Amino acid sequence: MRELVASEIEEANKKATERILSAECTLVDIKPAIKAIPGFKSNLITHAGPPIEWKRMCQPQKLSIINLIIYEGLADTPKEAERLVETGDVKIEPNHNYGNVSGMCGATSASMPVFVVKNKVHGNIAYNWQQTDLTAFGDKYKKAKEVQFVQETLAPVMKATIKEARGINIKELLAKGLQMGDELHGSFDACRGMLMNWILPHIVKTGFPKETLVQVGEYFLSREGRWYCGNLMMGACKAMMDPARDIKYSTIVTAMARNGVDFGIQISSLGNRWFTGPAGAIRGFTFPGYKPEDAAPDIGDSAISETRGLGGTATPASPSHARFMGESFQNAVNHTKLMHEVSVAEDPMFRIPYLDFAGVPVGIDMRKVVETGIVPKINTGMAHKEGGHPLIGAGVANAPIECFKEALKAFVEKYR
Amino acid sequence: MRELVASEIEEANKKATERILSAECTLVDIKPAIKAIPGFKSNLITHAGPPIEWKRMCQPQKLSIINLIIYEGLADTPKEAERLVETGDVKIEPNHNYGNVSGMCGATSASMPVFVVKNKVHGNIAYNWQQTDLTAFGDKYKKAKEVQFVQETLAPVMKATIKEARGINIKELLAKGLQMGDELHGSFDACRGMLMNWILPHIVKTGFPKETLVQVGEYFLSREGRWYCGNLMMGACKAMMDPARDIKYSTIVTAMARNGVDFGIQISSLGNRWFTGPAGAIRGFTFPGYKPEDAAPDIGDSAISETRGLGGTATPASPSHARFMGESFQNAVNHTKLMHEVSVAEDPMFRIPYLDFAGVPVGIDMRKVVETGIVPKINTGMAHKEGGHPLIGAGVANAPIECFKEALKAFVEKYR
Repeated sequence: MRELVASEIEEANKKATERILSAECTLVDIKPAIKAIPGFKSNLITHAGPPIEWKRMCQPQKLSIINLIIYEGLADTPKEAERLVETGDVKIEPNHNYGNVSGMCGATSASMPVFVVKNKVHGNIAYNWQQTDLTAFGDKYKKAKEVQFVQETLAPVMKATIKEARGINIKELLAKGLQMGDELHGSFDACRGMLMNWILPHIVKTGFPKETLVQVGEYFLSREGRWYCGNLMMGACKAMMDPARDIKYSTIVTAMARNGVDFGIQISSLGNRWFTGPAGAIRGFTFPGYKPEDAAPDIGDSAISETRGLGGTATPASPSHARFMGESFQNAVNHTKLMHEVSVAEDPMFRIPYLDFAGVPVGIDMRKVVETGIVPKINTGMAHKEGGHPLIGAGVANAPIECFKEALKAFVEKYR
Repeated sequence: MRELVASEIEEANKKATERILSAECTLVDIKPAIKAIPGFKSNLITHAGPPIEWKRMCQPQKLSIINLIIYEGLADTPKEAERLVETGDVKIEPNHNYGNVSGMCGATSASMPVFVVKNKVHGNIAYNWQQTDLTAFGDKYKKAKEVQFVQETLAPVMKATIKEARGINIKELLAKGLQMGDELHGSFDACRGMLMNWILPHIVKTGFPKETLVQVGEYFLSREGRWYCGNLMMGACKAMMDPARDIKYSTIVTAMARNGVDFGIQISSLGNRWFTGPAGAIRGFTFPGYKPEDAAPDIGDSAISETRGLGGTATPASPSHARFMGESFQNAVNHTKLMHEVSVAEDPMFRIPYLDFAGVPVGIDMRKVVETGIVPKINTGMAHKEGGHPLIGAGVANAPIECFKEALKAFVEKYR
C-alpha cells in the first residue's frame, strides 16, 4: 500500500497541514448549546471522548451527565436520571458529534452557554462548554451554583463583551501566551492576563451593573477563572483542526479525545470514525487528601490541544508547568523533538522561546506514530474515579499506540 | 584597607543584601508630587540621573524640564522657562533627592501624580512619576494632552482602584512577570496582563462613569499603557533598594541613574554622594526614520532595575526582548552569570526559568566590579538627542567603570 499511494499520502498530508496552519479562530459569541449547535436537542447530553455505552462509562462522567439531567429539569433524582438514559429518553453522545469539545468529563446540555469559535478562513465553527466542577468532574450536585453563575452572570457579560470587542482573536492570544510561559493545556496565566487586558475597555462598555462586573472580575481571579482560557483553547484548537478533516489519503490525526475508559483518535481520510485504545494512567501529583490511585484514567476532549501540537507537545514553553506536574524539563524537551519526528510541519506562529523559538510540531501522521512507536503525551488534570470531587491533581498521560494501529489498519483496508 | 576591614565589609554587605531581599513593595496611592513627596515645591522640577548643571544637561532632558515649567504655568514660552532656571526661580534637582525615580529624562513637577510605593517591612516609601512622551523624552509640547489625560483621568481612576484593592503587591507582580517572560526593564507584557487581571474587580467598583473606564481600558492597550508596569517597577525597585542605604562599611551599590551625560552610582556606606562616569552609547535598533546616531546617550532613573538585579541583569528571562533589542541570547546568559560574580546573593523570589530557575544576582559589590572589570549592562530606550521626539529605539548600554573606581577611592579615603 505504501508504495502504491505514498506520494498521494504526502500530498494529502501537506494539504491537511496547510489547512491547520492557515486556520484562524475567533471567539464570536456565547449562546446556549441548543441555540448555537445545529441538531442539539433538549433531551441530549453530550460528553467528552469517543462514544461509549453507559455501562462502560467511568463514574465521574456518569455523574457529570446525571448532574446535567437534573440541572436541566429532566429528572429530580440521580436514579430517575439514570433511568432516562437507560430507556433512551435522554440521549447520550460524544461532544465531537456536534463540533463541541469540553474539558475532563465534558458534559454539555441544552441550556449550557457554549463558546462559538469561528475559523474565518475556512468558514467552520467549533463550540465548547465551559468547564465547571459539576460538569467536568462529576462533582457533588450542590456545586450547581457555579453552573448557575456561569449561565446567568458570566456568560451574558462575556457575550456582550465579545460583541463590543467585535470578536476576540484566540489564535493570537494563544500564540502570544505560548511565548509567555503557557504550554496551552495546563497553564494559561499569560493568556488570562492578556485577555483581561484586551477586554477591559469592552467589558466596562457593556453597561452591566457595577456589582455584576465585580462578580465577573472576581471570577477571573478564582481557581475556576484561571481555567477560562483553557476552555477557549479547546474551541480554538477544534476550529483550527476541523479543516483538516476528510482529505482523501490523508493520515493526519484530526482529533484525540478520552472518556476515562477509551482514548480515541480520528483520522482525516477516515472521517468521523473513532479508533480507540485504553485511556492511560496519569503520572503526576495529587492535591492534599488525594492519592494518585484515586484518579480516573485520562479523560477529556482537551487533548485537542496536543492534536494541534500544543500542551504536552509544547511543554518546554512552560518550565514552571513542567515542574508543577513533576515532569523533568529535559524530558519535555526530548518529547517535543520526538513529536517533530512524527509530525508533518513546524508552526510558524506558535513558537517556543526555550527551543530557540522553534515552532511546535503540527500534523501528527499516524503512520509515523505506528512506525516509530512515538506517541503523544497529554498534559491533563485528574478527576476522582468515583466522582463527587473537583480537580484532584495534574500530570501527564500517554496516548495508547493501539488506536493508531487500529486506524492504520482501517486506512490500509480502505485504500488497498 | 582590604585587610583592615574585610570582614566588616562582608558583614555589612550581607546586611545590606538581606535588607534588599526582605524588602516588600506595595503600591498604596497616587498623589500629586507636591502632596506626596516631603519637601517638594511648586517651583521645583526634578529630573533623572545624578545632579548636573543646566549648561551640561542634554537637550531632551532640558526640553522635558522646559515642557513641565510651561505645563505648570510657571512660564509661557520655552525662552522664559529657561530664564527661570538660569535665575534659580525654578529649582532643578535630581529625582533621587526626593525618593523619586522616573524613566528616561524623568522630569517631574509639583502637580504630576506620582505612584506612592511603600516597603511595609522597613517602612520606607519611594515615588515615581509616570512616563509620558513630554516628560520622558522632551517630546513636542503639543503632546501635553497625554499628561493631562494621565493627570485628570488615569491617575484618579487608578488611585481609586488601588484604594478598592487595598494596595497592589508590586513585588509579587514583578516576580511572577519575570517567570512569564518579562525581564523587567524593557518588557512588561506579562506584568500588565496580570495587573489587569488583579484590578478588574476593583476598577469596576470605583464608580467612575463607563466612558472614563473605557478610556482607561483603551490606554492600557496603547503604546504608553504598555509601559505602565515599567513605571511601577521603578518605584518598587527604589523601595526595595533604599533599606540598603547608609550601612557602615557596605560597598553595595544602592542606585544607578543616568542623565544622558553622566552615569551615576551611589554606595551604601557613602550615603547620597554620587560617583559618575560618562553615560554610554546605546547598542540596539532604532524605529523607522531614526538612526542610532540620533540617540542621546544612556538616560533615566530606570537603571534602578539593574541595581536590583533585574532588566539587563535578567535578560535571559526574556528571550523575546533580547531578540527585540538585537542582543544575542547567549550573551545575555553570559552576562547574568558575570553579574553573579560581582554580586553578593542570589534572589530566592525573582527566578529565571531559562536558567533552571536560578535567582537573579542581588547586591552589586563595587569592589568586585573594580576588581573584575565586569560592569552592569542596562536595558534601555533611546531618546532623540535633540528632543522633540518620542521613543526612537531600544538597546543596551554599559555602565562606565569610572564611577565604580571613583566610589572605591572615596570608600578607601573614608575608611582608611
